[in-house]
Amino acid sequence: MARHEETTVENTYRIAVMGGTGPQGKGLGYRFAKHGHAVVLGSRAAEKAQAAADEVNARLDGGGVTGAANADACAEADVVLLAVPYDGHDELVASLPLAGKTVISCVNPLAFDKQGPHGRVIDGGEGSAAESAQRIAPDATVVGAFHHVSAKNLWAEEEFLDHEDVLVCGDSAEGKAVVVELARCVTGRAGIDAGRLRLARQLEPLTAVLISINKAYKTQSGIRISGV
Amino acid sequence: MARHEETTVENTYRIAVMGGTGPQGKGLGYRFAKHGHAVVLGSRAAEKAQAAADEVNARLDGGGVTGAANADACAEADVVLLAVPYDGHDELVASLPLAGKTVISCVNPLAFDKQGPHGRVIDGGEGSAAESAQRIAPDATVVGAFHHVSAKNLWAEEEFLDHEDVLVCGDSAEGKAVVVELARCVTGRAGIDAGRLRLARQLEPLTAVLISINKAYKTQSGIRISGV
Repeated sequence: MARHEETTVENTYRIAVMGGTGPQGKGLGYRFAKHGHAVVLGSRAAEKAQAAADEVNARLDGGGVTGAANADACAEADVVLLAVPYDGHDELVASLPLAGKTVISCVNPLAFDKQGPHGRVIDGGEGSAAESAQRIAPDATVVGAFHHVSAKNLWAEEEFLDHEDVLVCGDSAEGKAVVVELARCVTGRAGIDAGRLRLARQLEPLTAVLISINKAYKTQSGIRISGV
Repeated sequence: MARHEETTVENTYRIAVMGGTGPQGKGLGYRFAKHGHAVVLGSRAAEKAQAAADEVNARLDGGGVTGAANADACAEADVVLLAVPYDGHDELVASLPLAGKTVISCVNPLAFDKQGPHGRVIDGGEGSAAESAQRIAPDATVVGAFHHVSAKNLWAEEEFLDHEDVLVCGDSAEGKAVVVELARCVTGRAGIDAGRLRLARQLEPLTAVLISINKAYKTQSGIRISGV
């Protein structure tokens, strides 16, 4: 696979962000809108979503980002980003019209105790949020990605998060291709094909490691893959 | 924590490598010996261990690396590196004299099927090889590290694997400090404190992601942490 050589097809998507008022969802929505995609931020309450959209539009100097209740935001979208907490995730996914859409999960099922963060065990260690979404929405194409990009950096001024890589896992080559390209909005580079959807079991809780590093080094750490 | 500013205390360790005839063990043993540590490669059969030691010494232009049966190799060591396959891991650990020693686990419990590599589920998702070693050898100080460095790169000519980071997890600050310093032999930089020992649950199977990337991109990928 030639990561740096592919002809860039500049597809423009209608992207709905579930959890669009949270830092990860709002930050990714901002980056997608900045690069020409039509973004709708979703939230449980339409007016909260609209307030987040106004905030993004102010950053973009008028960007046309809109806000809507989650399911309404999905209705017209080609691509749906799940950027919601893991608590309530399954119920939310079940309530959304996702059939036929590319669904990106950046959900990180984490738990915290006095030892710090760690991965939550899903389906006895043989599952992940992304796999749950695929099971609940079998007619969607679920792809795992954007788990590790720092929300703080997403909302910052720098043009690209060029010290970070977006790892993309999924069972559909077409679905992964869409997300590998969308990663360019964030890092300025294609995302990295990280294998099958079940590797979300590894990617999701890796965020616990980054949070630990952030605490120890007082930084915003990210993942970069060398050799690609 | 000041990763680049600490005064380097040049401790020299007696390091025993369990699984010293495998590519990861032999490669790490080579790097440790190259930087002045006294290395004994261990294997089930002493003569196989000695053959691997001869091979390392040839690379080092005479390095004093020796070979011995696993338990004999451990006897005089300050630091024991577990670089063995996960099958048989627990039995091996139980057979070794590890009390009072710093034990580094780079064991990657992986499984492979037609979908490629994935992490093996240990203790229903609430365990890891490193945690198993700590439970079996409660008087040792177990640290997880060196899971992701490419065996091929370890054995190559380049002075340092400076595009890779060594992630170090453990519950003992002293144990982690030893390993954070030993990482310099491999990458030329201090290792990164990645948090508590239980985060080995996240670090060990991440190797499945790197193997998937290696296959897709025909490369030797590695992990680099940005922002540290």
